[in-house]
Amino acid sequence: MADLTRRGFFGTGIGAAGVGAALIGSAEAATGAAGQEPAALRGSVDAGKVSLPPLHAKSELNGTPPNPAAPGKRLGVAVVGLGTLALENIIPAFGETKHVRLAALVSGSPEKARAVGAEYGIPEKSIYSYERFDEIRNDPSVDIVYIVVPNALHAPFTVRAAQAGKHVLCEKPMAATVAEAERMVEACKAAGRKLMIAYRMQYTPEHRTLIDLARSKRYGAVRFIEAVNGQNDLPNGQWRQIKAMAGGGSLPDVGVYCFNAFRYLTGEEPVAVTGLVTRPEGDPRFREIEDVAMFTLRFPSGIVASGQCGYSFHESRMLRIHAETGWFGADAAFGYDNIAVAINRKEGQSSATESRRFSPKSQFAQEMDAFAAALQSGEEPHTPGAEGLQDMRIMEAIYRSAAQGGAVVTLPATTGLDRTRGPWPKQLGSFVPA
Amino acid sequence: MADLTRRGFFGTGIGAAGVGAALIGSAEAATGAAGQEPAALRGSVDAGKVSLPPLHAKSELNGTPPNPAAPGKRLGVAVVGLGTLALENIIPAFGETKHVRLAALVSGSPEKARAVGAEYGIPEKSIYSYERFDEIRNDPSVDIVYIVVPNALHAPFTVRAAQAGKHVLCEKPMAATVAEAERMVEACKAAGRKLMIAYRMQYTPEHRTLIDLARSKRYGAVRFIEAVNGQNDLPNGQWRQIKAMAGGGSLPDVGVYCFNAFRYLTGEEPVAVTGLVTRPEGDPRFREIEDVAMFTLRFPSGIVASGQCGYSFHESRMLRIHAETGWFGADAAFGYDNIAVAINRKEGQSSATESRRFSPKSQFAQEMDAFAAALQSGEEPHTPGAEGLQDMRIMEAIYRSAAQGGAVVTLPATTGLDRTRGPWPKQLGSFVPA
Repeated sequence: MADLTRRGFFGTGIGAAGVGAALIGSAEAATGAAGQEPAALRGSVDAGKVSLPPLHAKSELNGTPPNPAAPGKRLGVAVVGLGTLALENIIPAFGETKHVRLAALVSGSPEKARAVGAEYGIPEKSIYSYERFDEIRNDPSVDIVYIVVPNALHAPFTVRAAQAGKHVLCEKPMAATVAEAERMVEACKAAGRKLMIAYRMQYTPEHRTLIDLARSKRYGAVRFIEAVNGQNDLPNGQWRQIKAMAGGGSLPDVGVYCFNAFRYLTGEEPVAVTGLVTRPEGDPRFREIEDVAMFTLRFPSGIVASGQCGYSFHESRMLRIHAETGWFGADAAFGYDNIAVAINRKEGQSSATESRRFSPKSQFAQEMDAFAAALQSGEEPHTPGAEGLQDMRIMEAIYRSAAQGGAVVTLPATTGLDRTRGPWPKQLGSFVPA
Repeated sequence: MADLTRRGFFGTGIGAAGVGAALIGSAEAATGAAGQEPAALRGSVDAGKVSLPPLHAKSELNGTPPNPAAPGKRLGVAVVGLGTLALENIIPAFGETKHVRLAALVSGSPEKARAVGAEYGIPEKSIYSYERFDEIRNDPSVDIVYIVVPNALHAPFTVRAAQAGKHVLCEKPMAATVAEAERMVEACKAAGRKLMIAYRMQYTPEHRTLIDLARSKRYGAVRFIEAVNGQNDLPNGQWRQIKAMAGGGSLPDVGVYCFNAFRYLTGEEPVAVTGLVTRPEGDPRFREIEDVAMFTLRFPSGIVASGQCGYSFHESRMLRIHAETGWFGADAAFGYDNIAVAINRKEGQSSATESRRFSPKSQFAQEMDAFAAALQSGEEPHTPGAEGLQDMRIMEAIYRSAAQGGAVVTLPATTGLDRTRGPWPKQLGSFVPA
């Protein structure tokens, strides 16, 4: 390689291909020598972590180097199920994770698993069929099993993973039934393994901001929350349209985001729930499952919430929190990206709406790193099994209300906030609600 | 006055104060003489109406002169009740009306009525107390009585106005009870007078656009509609907080916009309704009335709708129609101005949201001119008593459901569209739904 001191740069002939790298190195060396830029701007290294000083004024956004853990020090994740969510979102997110790495693939399709393994450098020995899955107990490269299969398979795979000595990250909804969810909690407890439900929204800066605005009473007390989550699905017989696989229709799949949000925004648990569902006649998508579900939740503090979800209307994901002196919320609120936080209040004689955008980061990377942080600290995950189980109970109450023509179904009164949640991992830094 | 031909302009000395007017006139005369601008651009007059040709390309918005009817040819309106709505919104709107003029004031406060009369040039003889109101039958300057008093007074004033031979424009909600609303319809029918309910949103280009998008199925079939309407009111004992005056709380006052919108967007009548209300303990605003009301409507075509209103959260007025391939709606949807229509759809690989703004026009002027158009054509008003009566029945069903813990209340099934509405007045031009 070329000598990258100033002398080297000017003293050697560097081909075009080498110029870019050489210039960077030489500039760094040169400024030290010539004193044209303060040396402090080159940053510092402390315990293997690189710091760079801010380049922009305090009024501007400044980035930070991600400082990922070395590959050998990261927790290994086995992804179970190679469907749309795994292939389009979860597996690519390992390119952004800092504390976990993709270690193994588990699939019912050997051909697909080998193709994906080749793309991401996963060796053949780390590819498991569903039948061979239990052998994962002998695979020390795997610390966490991330379950991304249809809802009705969450319980059996969670039980098998816990019994194989692995921690479990399980997609939402936690299960197809309350009983399955309870079994999952028990199995992980019995095996001394941690269980986290993949409530990705709770790990985003956008939703942490909304939680903070709600709980800090920045705009007075919250009075009413509304949410919509849904999209127009193809009539293709996908597992989400099969009740035995999904446990329900749009409610467990996309509706759960709405009532989970009502819960984490308030920190409270609902004491009364109503539900109504539609099942359009003759639409092949809704032979077994509901299309639109509309539901209300009433919380002990008096806050009420109204949510709607569905599988037959154009993508719409909105959340608004109505407080005494302002409203705040988001469009694309439950999407994978481009969440547009908005805050409305009176400003002088105007109705002012503020928009907040954050630098794009993979929600799945943030969520997986949060689980790793909990495992490393030994604390309960922020969204453990109890969090998912409570949503299953609420969902059951919504369906029960719908079956009774929308009549109120009461749930046990609880006190205190965040009783189903573990602490916010300190390693994740800011966005802790007040 | 100065001679405004080119010769006159250059030939006479014009003081500074006269220059503006003189320049306009002289330019018009001058172009004819010198041929610098086509004479056609000066417009034309046909049957007393002025036309001006467009100045901007077809791709640009072009205005039109309003061509109001001469004052002596307009219908005279007596405004009954000089509260916030009348003084801040309705009376100033006569500055924009084209077919009605302010003819008389009716108030329980003689001092206030005289002050307002002085501001708007209404003579003492056209100012009526509530007691003297019936003498309005002998006042030929009054064709229409616009009722802007508390809800419980709508029925008695409507009956008195009809019996005095006047047409009635009545604020929403139509009355405090269904029985009162029925009495109003009957009284106007018996007197051979027209009754219109002041559903101002139905006369705005913004809501006409949404109606057109919904009914034309531009984005496929509508599946679900949501609306929120409310604001944070002072605990001041205003009549809206007194049940006997208002007939209810936020539901009749602001909630009515939501379910009225569900009805005019679909053209259908609901067959099932649910309702839930909150009444915060210890809050002096809600001693007699509800705060938040949440309600659902189910329509014969399968469309479902969810609405929320309240008196304790920051101003929020939103409406979204969720159709198969797009959503459309508005923020500030039920406000007096600044309604921001938005339409979201897929465009290539992007989620595209289009915003539509219309030139500001007084909603009250549009609504009053629409009533005048109906009276002049002899057709039923677009939003007659039947339209308001149906909302009263729905409101009663919502309260009944709430009293039964949210259970579904069914309403009689109906067929056909717009069965409670008169035709869209041809004189109003475009924005007729498909």
